[in-house]
Amino acid sequence: MFKDYLASSKQTIEQLLSQVLTSPNQEFKPLYESMNYSLMQGGKRIRPILSKAVLEMLHKNPADYKEFLCAMECIHTYSLVHDDLPAMDNDDYRRGNLTNHKVYGEGMAILAGDGLLTYAFQLMTENKTATPQQKIDAIQCVAAAAGPEGMVGGQAFDMLSEDNHIPLEELKVLHSGKTGALFNASVKLGLILGSANSATTSALMKYSNCLGLLFQIIDDILDVTGTIEELGKTPGSDIRQHKSTYVSLLGLESAKNQATLVGQQAHDALDSISYDTSILSALIDYLLERTN
Amino acid sequence: MFKDYLASSKQTIEQLLSQVLTSPNQEFKPLYESMNYSLMQGGKRIRPILSKAVLEMLHKNPADYKEFLCAMECIHTYSLVHDDLPAMDNDDYRRGNLTNHKVYGEGMAILAGDGLLTYAFQLMTENKTATPQQKIDAIQCVAAAAGPEGMVGGQAFDMLSEDNHIPLEELKVLHSGKTGALFNASVKLGLILGSANSATTSALMKYSNCLGLLFQIIDDILDVTGTIEELGKTPGSDIRQHKSTYVSLLGLESAKNQATLVGQQAHDALDSISYDTSILSALIDYLLERTN
Repeated sequence: MFKDYLASSKQTIEQLLSQVLTSPNQEFKPLYESMNYSLMQGGKRIRPILSKAVLEMLHKNPADYKEFLCAMECIHTYSLVHDDLPAMDNDDYRRGNLTNHKVYGEGMAILAGDGLLTYAFQLMTENKTATPQQKIDAIQCVAAAAGPEGMVGGQAFDMLSEDNHIPLEELKVLHSGKTGALFNASVKLGLILGSANSATTSALMKYSNCLGLLFQIIDDILDVTGTIEELGKTPGSDIRQHKSTYVSLLGLESAKNQATLVGQQAHDALDSISYDTSILSALIDYLLERTN
Repeated sequence: MFKDYLASSKQTIEQLLSQVLTSPNQEFKPLYESMNYSLMQGGKRIRPILSKAVLEMLHKNPADYKEFLCAMECIHTYSLVHDDLPAMDNDDYRRGNLTNHKVYGEGMAILAGDGLLTYAFQLMTENKTATPQQKIDAIQCVAAAAGPEGMVGGQAFDMLSEDNHIPLEELKVLHSGKTGALFNASVKLGLILGSANSATTSALMKYSNCLGLLFQIIDDILDVTGTIEELGKTPGSDIRQHKSTYVSLLGLESAKNQATLVGQQAHDALDSISYDTSILSALIDYLLERTN
């Protein structure tokens, strides 16, 4: 049943995404093609699904906030497109398909990323349901999470840490930027737009902190245990790039135990919430058990 | 006297810019250093000066809107950092200094650009003077101008047009995206934040359309007539990259006449405005006569 929820949410979001990017003229079409190539390449859509689930928990209709859901996925997609570039992770495949720069060239991939990022902010301003103050709060939360204090900062730190052994404390700073910030923003977006009270907000922020960490630990584990078929990309990239990971620092078994523990903390965080948290709860176990 | 205005405005803006980017932790410092390197590298600061001049014309204190002025320059700087990359224009020098990727490497330059762009949106949300609706209108205007419908679209079209002869009509589309959109946004930002009436708005949008076009024609002329000392970069890059320009399509003399004509149209657009437009008027002649 939760699987059905995920599948139908993914479909809803991909339906919305397929409509957002239309070239204003003939001349700009190749750029839009490149942006759409990466945006429509599947993936779990976990960030907009998180926002959607929080909105639903707060009895809001996610369709009324579709611009925000699409914006989260545009930002996530831009980060992947830039991350895959030769000057960064230099990946040829993503989700079983050629990466953006392998199809459109490096210059166009840089611009497609830039375009997706900028368009995300435009999208959020165009929503008709949220109040102006809610929109400002949402944009602020997303920009802070995606920008130099958050995702871009974590990304830069990650790049500079290649070939270096870093201690667990620094690995946590790295991931709270690189992955955690956007996870938190997805949840916070739902809380802002759903006008959640402060008790719910603080409980769900604890939840999303755990969820982001959990997601990253599992990512590190899958890079060791996953297959190319499951992952849609070659496993072992962390080892090849000599990156410190939860597995390299803790060992595989301890990393698995840590993931289970953090998952439990995420469940605990939901306990105090008076809304129906069954979807958010199932999401923890889904991320814990995922194979891609 | 107008020279003094420009110099003091540039100083004001650089003072503001020097304060915006501070790393939240030790780990992210190299990213902030790379962002600040390009942000503090001088330049005309013409975009925030335009917004500032419009705000002053409307009797607003630009200091109350400093986040928007800084945001415009962050976005302009990001576009230069990405534009200079090997996969794009492949420039080693900018304003007489090494380009960002020559100092910090390509990966960091990509992230510095991403960081500057994202931070610009965060900055705009943090302003304390504008109303929430004004902030939303401003962010929408800036995002649309900077994104795939505007600057990024023009940039992509420019890249694909290298080595191709394109007709004047397409060159106009290219430049209205690549340069014009951000010029227009600078003026519109001032109009939105200064609560300008519709007559003033429509006259100044005509003005800024002309100003953006004028700026680009002069840019094309300087690429032929300028020296490396004046430009701070090697002239002739358009010819080397086989780009269509106003000079290659019209010839040098016609391009100069066209610039003068468009400058006159910009002056005409100011005629109907009941505010003091002396600064905006002097700006036209400054851009017409600039040598860098």
